[in-house]
Amino acid sequence: MKKAVLFSLWGGVVTPHLSQTFQKFEESAGISRGFIKNVIAKLGSENALYCLEKGKVTLTQMIPEFEAECQKVAADQGLSLPAQFSAQKLFSDVGQVEFNKPVLDAAAVLRRHGIATCVLANIWVDDTDQRDGVARILSVLECRFDLVVRSCYAGVRIPEPDIFTNALEKLAVKPQEAVWLDVDEESVKAAGVLGMTAVQVKDITEALKEIQNLTGIEVTSDLQPPSCDPENVSHGYVNIKPGVRIHYVDMGDGPPVLLCHGFPESWFSWRYQIPALADAGFRVLALDMKGYGDTTAPPDIEEYSQEQIMLVSKTNPCKFIGIPQVTLVGHDWGGALVWNMAQFHSERVRAVASLNTPLFPVDPKTNPMEKLKAMPIFDYQIYFQKPGVAEAELEKNLKRTFKLMFIASNETVYLSVPKASPNQLDCGLFVGSPDDPARSAILSESALQCYVQQFTKSGFRGPLNWYRNGERNWRWMCSRPRGKIMMPALMVTAGKDPVLLPAFATGMENLVRQHLCYSSIMLMPAELNKILISWLKETHQKASIPVHPKL
Amino acid sequence: MKKAVLFSLWGGVVTPHLSQTFQKFEESAGISRGFIKNVIAKLGSENALYCLEKGKVTLTQMIPEFEAECQKVAADQGLSLPAQFSAQKLFSDVGQVEFNKPVLDAAAVLRRHGIATCVLANIWVDDTDQRDGVARILSVLECRFDLVVRSCYAGVRIPEPDIFTNALEKLAVKPQEAVWLDVDEESVKAAGVLGMTAVQVKDITEALKEIQNLTGIEVTSDLQPPSCDPENVSHGYVNIKPGVRIHYVDMGDGPPVLLCHGFPESWFSWRYQIPALADAGFRVLALDMKGYGDTTAPPDIEEYSQEQIMLVSKTNPCKFIGIPQVTLVGHDWGGALVWNMAQFHSERVRAVASLNTPLFPVDPKTNPMEKLKAMPIFDYQIYFQKPGVAEAELEKNLKRTFKLMFIASNETVYLSVPKASPNQLDCGLFVGSPDDPARSAILSESALQCYVQQFTKSGFRGPLNWYRNGERNWRWMCSRPRGKIMMPALMVTAGKDPVLLPAFATGMENLVRQHLCYSSIMLMPAELNKILISWLKETHQKASIPVHPKL
Repeated sequence: MKKAVLFSLWGGVVTPHLSQTFQKFEESAGISRGFIKNVIAKLGSENALYCLEKGKVTLTQMIPEFEAECQKVAADQGLSLPAQFSAQKLFSDVGQVEFNKPVLDAAAVLRRHGIATCVLANIWVDDTDQRDGVARILSVLECRFDLVVRSCYAGVRIPEPDIFTNALEKLAVKPQEAVWLDVDEESVKAAGVLGMTAVQVKDITEALKEIQNLTGIEVTSDLQPPSCDPENVSHGYVNIKPGVRIHYVDMGDGPPVLLCHGFPESWFSWRYQIPALADAGFRVLALDMKGYGDTTAPPDIEEYSQEQIMLVSKTNPCKFIGIPQVTLVGHDWGGALVWNMAQFHSERVRAVASLNTPLFPVDPKTNPMEKLKAMPIFDYQIYFQKPGVAEAELEKNLKRTFKLMFIASNETVYLSVPKASPNQLDCGLFVGSPDDPARSAILSESALQCYVQQFTKSGFRGPLNWYRNGERNWRWMCSRPRGKIMMPALMVTAGKDPVLLPAFATGMENLVRQHLCYSSIMLMPAELNKILISWLKETHQKASIPVHPKL
Repeated sequence: MKKAVLFSLWGGVVTPHLSQTFQKFEESAGISRGFIKNVIAKLGSENALYCLEKGKVTLTQMIPEFEAECQKVAADQGLSLPAQFSAQKLFSDVGQVEFNKPVLDAAAVLRRHGIATCVLANIWVDDTDQRDGVARILSVLECRFDLVVRSCYAGVRIPEPDIFTNALEKLAVKPQEAVWLDVDEESVKAAGVLGMTAVQVKDITEALKEIQNLTGIEVTSDLQPPSCDPENVSHGYVNIKPGVRIHYVDMGDGPPVLLCHGFPESWFSWRYQIPALADAGFRVLALDMKGYGDTTAPPDIEEYSQEQIMLVSKTNPCKFIGIPQVTLVGHDWGGALVWNMAQFHSERVRAVASLNTPLFPVDPKTNPMEKLKAMPIFDYQIYFQKPGVAEAELEKNLKRTFKLMFIASNETVYLSVPKASPNQLDCGLFVGSPDDPARSAILSESALQCYVQQFTKSGFRGPLNWYRNGERNWRWMCSRPRGKIMMPALMVTAGKDPVLLPAFATGMENLVRQHLCYSSIMLMPAELNKILISWLKETHQKASIPVHPKL
């Protein structure tokens, strides 16, 4: 079986074929179509481009030489190059090339299934003022592939055998265990000679099918957005007051977006959003909320009132990290929090998005706990009220807890809503559930392990305490000014959520001015990313805040 | 003695008097000068502005009411307000107010000397589209003062006594231990009644002198930029390969700037730069370099070659944090590194600045170790070559080591350059130095403790290994393409540096294209910040990258 897949960067594998880039360049430079291809084809064995790719010179050093070669080819054709001809512009155009999205997706699937992924790139040291294009390409490749080999560092270029053998050595795989994909016939031959399985790419869909056959992994259908490996992301820690520390995961460069998870989750619950939002040009900060994971979990119930939690969240991104304004995205309890932040700390919030949790109106006349009791859908929240009871059940077997709680909407639900008094022994969420339930299709073994590890430290007391401030939150909110939310807001409802029903969002237009409501039946990661990114881009564009997407 | 100083936000204390803001507003709105002051003066006890400040309504809710009050005052004067009159614009203008820099500086000095600092602010919940002005004000205040009390959260406004007593309670000081500064006579009276020492500000310089008399702290002359408290900054950690973790301090929002320290230092060596650059609108990432502090310190010498260290630094900000391009600032060995990064990983570097360390030309004919031996100024580097020798001396008494090494240029130098063979017992940097040398004026006791703690973990082996790759670095650099550095570059020389002499920077114009050289005799933190910020702003402006300074 294959253990590694190596991709060629240019020309139709990781990036689309450069012929379009060349053609546009030729048009804008006023030279005949096919000229650049012609120059490259005529290059000898020790030409300027090869020296560049092998790192003997930098791009700035090489450009005059390349221009000279172009002049020569033109002269041979009896032509002279127009004044506006600029090899610098040609290389800068190449740096602006897009990615072949299906190939990036396929590489992500391979990686998730334990196949090592590698890009070999005939790419130079770009020291020109237009080097940000190459910087963007490298940044994406380094995030998406296990190994990136640049010819200018290796000192050898494709199709030289050493570039393959060097890469295989670093990947610790034998040639027979590796697949090579390129458009170029020569490199396919060279890889074949070494013993690799080489696929010459003519049509990318066909090539990906061949990868599927060779690896046995469905690289074109098993699509999920890239995830985060907790071992390989940047973890931030900040003390917001003596003895209280906030943990967050931090990725990307651009306007900040703060992700606030719900019950009973983790920063890790955003694993499919973090890389996607970072690639879209945002700096993503995914918090462990108060009481969770590596964030401090004080024992007292009062510490988990919305007022107290907002002090934490407000001072986290702002006071110590020194960010004046963030966009907030919350889910479940995190959704309730971001609506409150948008209302009571509006200065620090650029825009607000909530998943599943609508903004509820505050009724100063009715204690919300009375309302809860009248709605059987919220019985579990009544069960959560008595300290220690739900903790005991949920902490008993963490693995079982998460297997029972994280399921897809088409899988068997074992959770029961406890009708009985919380003092009765047979009462609980998991009464009658199997001791060793099946793990959901949406929860990988490593994700399950991650949740178990996250809750081993502080358990469920802090997380459950979020539910134990209903009356306190209500009284506090009644005491605060509560106007319409004026900032851009996004509400995403999920049709299959059995508790936070889409119907609860009805009437939100009375509470939020710039309200965008998106309803989904099955809120899958790829769909959610698309919604969030499109809303984030539009919101920042309207506010004239530049965003530089990498993908 | 006084334990706390409380400042009023508006009107001539932390911000300049708003009369200028009002005047400009009146001019642009086409209303008579003094109108706004007049409206405010005529407000009754339960007026719209007071309700806003006390958090009974948000700014959006209050604006129509305030406009009605303005209409009323205008009508009383027999006038009608022009069509372009907008109370929203008035509040937005207020949010754009600058800070009184001397007051911020004075507050920083007080804080450094252990006096609690607090701002009381009659400030509202700003939920308008122009709320980023207030966000910026709050972000600066929260970074610079120990406590910020907003009237809209406290439910009381200055001069109500409760706002003072609430603040004193939070600061845990008695009224007699606190000083209050305001322009407003009423608030000065109110604070006086409570037993506080109240200073009515007429001239800010005079007021600061009075603070000086009351606290005994020279708030106007002992000026240093604000520093970082390691306990109160955000710490980032990222694994760049199995078993190798990078630690960095992260502050601010904006284009990223990566700070690389020298020998034998720490992220903490940038403590006076981090808040200043963050306030100037940049995201600052201050690394613990390989071998230092909370970054992993592998034992092998080879791990500290420039090639290997660059792999660390390159992948740190880029690969896992997902930042495509950063501006690099390096000092001492960090300076050597950033020049190499600019040359060999130019794509990922937006611009490069080096303090003290010039870019040296590479001479492929002469082994640099031979050159070193010929220059007595570098004898200490010869002494550092033999593994274990300098480690033993430097690690023997960390406190003494840092007291001997971190000194101002006008203080006694005890370091000797060892002439003898490293095998001789009487050879060393500290031979003949006092056992308990005085601590330098530039090194506070807490800073000394911080350095000791940073080096307790990994000692000096890693840091010294940076010096043990001279030949390896040379060979490697000779093998790489080495063009002129094409990106914007800043070289700062320090006249009092006894080793990295300013003269070494001569001829750098042959190696760097966009070269700006700044020479300083005494490179003090405030001067350095000014140089760096002005260069950073100019560099990013030229590249059309927006920067939003907070100060």
